[in-house]
Amino acid sequence: MGTDNILEGLIKENNSKIAMVVMDGLGDIRSPEFENKTPLEYATTPNMDVLAKESVCGRHMPVMPGITPGSGPGHLGIFGYNPLEVIIGRGVLEAVGLGLELKHGDVAARANFATLDGDGKICDRRAGRIPTEKNKELCGILSQIKEIDGVEVIVEPGKGHRFVVVFKGDNLNPAVNDTDPQHEGYAPLRAKAQKEEAAFTADVINKFVERARTLLQEQQPANGILLRGISSRPKIPGFKEKYKLEAAAIASYPMYRGIADLLGMALLPAPDTIEGLFNTYIEYNNKYDFFFIHIKGTDQAGEDGEFLTKVSVIEKVDSALPILLKKKPNVLAITGDHSSPCSMYSHSWHPVPVLVNSQFCGIDDAVRFTENQCNIGGLGLFESRHLMTLLLANALRLDKYGA
Amino acid sequence: MGTDNILEGLIKENNSKIAMVVMDGLGDIRSPEFENKTPLEYATTPNMDVLAKESVCGRHMPVMPGITPGSGPGHLGIFGYNPLEVIIGRGVLEAVGLGLELKHGDVAARANFATLDGDGKICDRRAGRIPTEKNKELCGILSQIKEIDGVEVIVEPGKGHRFVVVFKGDNLNPAVNDTDPQHEGYAPLRAKAQKEEAAFTADVINKFVERARTLLQEQQPANGILLRGISSRPKIPGFKEKYKLEAAAIASYPMYRGIADLLGMALLPAPDTIEGLFNTYIEYNNKYDFFFIHIKGTDQAGEDGEFLTKVSVIEKVDSALPILLKKKPNVLAITGDHSSPCSMYSHSWHPVPVLVNSQFCGIDDAVRFTENQCNIGGLGLFESRHLMTLLLANALRLDKYGA
Repeated sequence: MGTDNILEGLIKENNSKIAMVVMDGLGDIRSPEFENKTPLEYATTPNMDVLAKESVCGRHMPVMPGITPGSGPGHLGIFGYNPLEVIIGRGVLEAVGLGLELKHGDVAARANFATLDGDGKICDRRAGRIPTEKNKELCGILSQIKEIDGVEVIVEPGKGHRFVVVFKGDNLNPAVNDTDPQHEGYAPLRAKAQKEEAAFTADVINKFVERARTLLQEQQPANGILLRGISSRPKIPGFKEKYKLEAAAIASYPMYRGIADLLGMALLPAPDTIEGLFNTYIEYNNKYDFFFIHIKGTDQAGEDGEFLTKVSVIEKVDSALPILLKKKPNVLAITGDHSSPCSMYSHSWHPVPVLVNSQFCGIDDAVRFTENQCNIGGLGLFESRHLMTLLLANALRLDKYGA
Repeated sequence: MGTDNILEGLIKENNSKIAMVVMDGLGDIRSPEFENKTPLEYATTPNMDVLAKESVCGRHMPVMPGITPGSGPGHLGIFGYNPLEVIIGRGVLEAVGLGLELKHGDVAARANFATLDGDGKICDRRAGRIPTEKNKELCGILSQIKEIDGVEVIVEPGKGHRFVVVFKGDNLNPAVNDTDPQHEGYAPLRAKAQKEEAAFTADVINKFVERARTLLQEQQPANGILLRGISSRPKIPGFKEKYKLEAAAIASYPMYRGIADLLGMALLPAPDTIEGLFNTYIEYNNKYDFFFIHIKGTDQAGEDGEFLTKVSVIEKVDSALPILLKKKPNVLAITGDHSSPCSMYSHSWHPVPVLVNSQFCGIDDAVRFTENQCNIGGLGLFESRHLMTLLLANALRLDKYGA
């Protein structure tokens, strides 16, 4: 039996508040250049130190041991969805990441500008990685295609050569293959329906590609397009249905706002500073049960290999923490969605430190909120998808299982 | 979705080397007679101590908490196969354990010499545990049966009353029940096909048993035979298919060579000394990606209850370690396939200590490679079947999962 099924019969409501502070890519590994410490170990964090002594700590794995998650699976995990079962298509993720609103039934595709030769074969899948400014100009041209056979078409530029196409209309179905053959020297593939119900969608996509080809034919190097990850908003229960929680997201980056939106969270104002994020929590504290507060800086520093920047973001979160604690939630979790070690310049598989504070958390021997103190914590090592259950339990929002 | 499916799309190749040093039955429990220490705690291990300080440690469970694995499930686990799903038949395990080559389609059975009374009923299932020398003589007699209905028959003596029969031919099928009723006072069972396709095999087996009976009729006490674990080589993906690794085994015992062979590993020379095993690694270092180095002494000492012998094997491995480190693999794991506590004289369910060393392992607070230091390690407690995923991750041979 999965977590979903067991939770269904156990969830009850009360007036408790739960806040989850997610420092994106928080987990790290020790760096020889920095006293053999991780950023959490190196940082000065008086407020989190106090909190760690009054909390239960542990480490969670987004997918399974050794698997490095993308941001989608990482966040699905901490929100209690099994990232091996709930798949958010790449098209959907890119679309919500760019702030586009996706309704059920809409179909989104990730797209590249590409260079085609005289025979229509791909000679550069990324059109020489054109600058974002050029991308915006080309998407402006493609936006002339407003409608195909009654289906509304929306084109939105991303970074470099990447953009997103969203199709809105009746009877659309995302069971259509990529048109990107993934290799140069081949012509783009035609969109083909993987089942009968998707035939109309495949046809619309092919017409879109043909019209785009005509509109771009004088362009160099971006005279073609390739579509991938054709997908629709997944049918997954949101926080209200799954947890009976009125949830809100305080996140400034489009991708995390997008995922929160897919899960039915309200999107609250998210100022640029960490103080600002915590102030939004204070302001809306009485309006919601659950708050997802997302801090991007840690991941960015990890991916850029900037150890001291990551340390500084952690220290800023620590200094701002007293704002949040002015209206201390009944359950407070501080964690990340995955690890992004500075020395790896990327996401990684290392388990993510987590701290849970509540009246009944069960205080352990961890005295600081660090990866290695979390190793001796009372939560042990567990799959991220169980974190929400732990928070609900700490909020006394779960009945006993069985007599 | 299982580990297999997820790995399939993520594995990439590079030039990294992975070495897994398996001290069979390594895990142990503290002995009051030896300063309340485990053999790993009692042993002097300067080289592993240094390594532990630069590594990540943890403990793995071959099957699940409380389940004691045999050597088959133990090794399947550390090689990344789910021992609850991949079953190697006992016949196959015994056959490969005795160094017999098994092709797909061959059928192998474990056999006992037994004593039958005048009515043909079993009065001793083990024929008074005849000595191995007598077993060899009797297997020599049975080897007169070279062929039955076009099927080649091979009889190979094991230890005591145990031997193996392998049937080689077309259209064989292992879906045949044991002829051993498991209780004395009953006649041996006839081999029966569990499905239509195995009817011919059952018939061949019954003819073999009848001819054996005739050949043995003047023997005392071993005048009958009983067959069990009738099985064929399992159809499981080997290391090349599953991990894109060219793998090699450095193991001297037939059973471990056999399992390695089933998984497509090359079998390298395995001298009698631990130095010899590590020297083979050095010699073949540039020819393979993955090395399984198997050390039997620890398990033997555990099963014999010889604490100091186990300590001495561990110390020998430690002293020989600098040989292996002359060509330090990108990823080095030191572990066991299961625990064999000396005070229990047997395999046990206790989680197995493991150390993983790589540039990105994420060094933890463990300062020695012992069961109890591994308890505070960064890998936590995990199922053995995830160990290979962790090693591949450390070798940077896995892509990110999801966007």
